[in-house]
Order: sequence, then structure tokens, then C-alpha cells
Amino acid sequence: MASLFTKIVQGEIPCYRIAEDEQFLAFLDVFPQAIGHVLVIPKKETDYFFDLSAEELSGILVFAQPIAKAIGQAFPCRKVGLSVIGLEVPHAHVHLVPMQTVNDLNFSRPKLSPSPESLAEAAERIRLFLR
Amino acid sequence: MASLFTKIVQGEIPCYRIAEDEQFLAFLDVFPQAIGHVLVIPKKETDYFFDLSAEELSGILVFAQPIAKAIGQAFPCRKVGLSVIGLEVPHAHVHLVPMQTVNDLNFSRPKLSPSPESLAEAAERIRLFLR
Repeated sequence: MASLFTKIVQGEIPCYRIAEDEQFLAFLDVFPQAIGHVLVIPKKETDYFFDLSAEELSGILVFAQPIAKAIGQAFPCRKVGLSVIGLEVPHAHVHLVPMQTVNDLNFSRPKLSPSPESLAEAAERIRLFLR
Repeated sequence: MASLFTKIVQGEIPCYRIAEDEQFLAFLDVFPQAIGHVLVIPKKETDYFFDLSAEELSGILVFAQPIAKAIGQAFPCRKVGLSVIGLEVPHAHVHLVPMQTVNDLNFSRPKLSPSPESLAEAAERIRLFLR
């Protein structure tokens, strides 16, 4: 069965899209650690991050770099952090999270649940800095 | 002043070395989140991860992949997770941590302080699976 993220890639499930190219897609995490939290995924479904191809591994951070910079401009923070955990959705993904403290990257704490309006506004704000 | 990690690269401060090439170095975190926790750094000192060059960003995960696989074999776990935080040492670094739960990647909890013997043994075990 296709993963939740494959359904997002295929447009069956909507997302707050930030950027995409042939190989990768970036969209908002709707249950973010902090406002501005973005997921970057390879479009091709692979469960374990370290099972990605060398091509995917060498491309994903280059794709993520301008997005991380835009997040940092859209949501001023100490740094944009990065995590790959993968214990929930079996489709490799990178979390980009604007951090004020190390606890912003603590995925064992309760997530936020922003309104659709707030998510749309966050996505638009990041896209603005990506241009 | 050279960062702690530059001093490790230059051999002024010792480390439990796992692997290295021209561009990158991997060694044990001596205050790990879990036994088998490895740091991967670019040898050239840059503070913010997303300020790395495109060449470094495209190489670092390809360099880390076999190390992550070896960690997973040396210390059986659900997955090897990855984090980039960077609020302490101002020299970009990737954490590779064998995870049983999401809390193993929670850097706000107290770290472990394994004995030198236990660290040497963990490094040897990972290197064994890297061969």
C-alpha cells in the first residue's frame, strides 16, 4: 500500500507545498514541532533513510539547503535543525525545524496543531523567502 | 580560535575514530544519547550546517551511509536516526544515533557518560562492521 507521503506526492492527499523538483518534495508538517516545520522527502518511496540511493542521499541536502535558509528568514530562530527519525511514516523524510532551544527538536514532546489558516500563512511566508 | 572539532581533526585532541576520508571524519560522541552514537563532521570548519558548500552537503550523507549501517549492525536498533542541532559546538556536525524509541533522539535529556573502555569497545565494534 502506498505510504501517506506517496499519496501526497501523487496529489491524493493535499499538502502545504513549499518546493519540489523531479526527485524531492517539501511541504509543511501539519503537526509541527514549531511553526515553520517542513518535511523534505524523496518522491520515490523507501522506508529507511539509509536505504536511499547514493543519488538521493547526495541530492536531498542540496535540495533542502535553500528551504532551510528560507525557514530561518521566515521564522527567526537560532538555527534550523534537521532530524531523520522514521519510526512512524515508512517513507524516508527529513524534518527541518526552526529552533530556539534544543527542545524544539525533541520529538517525544506533544506536537502543535495549528489551524489551516495558520499553516497556509506559514507556507506562504516560507515560499516568499524562497523566491 | 579553532573549534573543539577542528582540534580533533588536527589530532590535538584524541577521539574514538570510526572512519575518515579527505573531506569528512566520523568519531564517537563521548557523551552519547545511546551507545553507538557517532558524530560525522566536515573537516573544514563551518559553524552552521546549512552554510556548508553544495559539495559538502552532497557528500556528507554518502559518507555517513555505511557508518549508519555499521552502527545498526553493531548495536541492533529499530533504525539509526540522524540529527543536526548545532547549538553547542560551532562546527557543523551530524549525529547518528541507534534508536529504540524517539526519545533516543531527544537531546534535551541527560547524556550518558560511558567509561573509556566502553567507548573503545563500541568504536571497535562499529569499525568491525564497516570492514
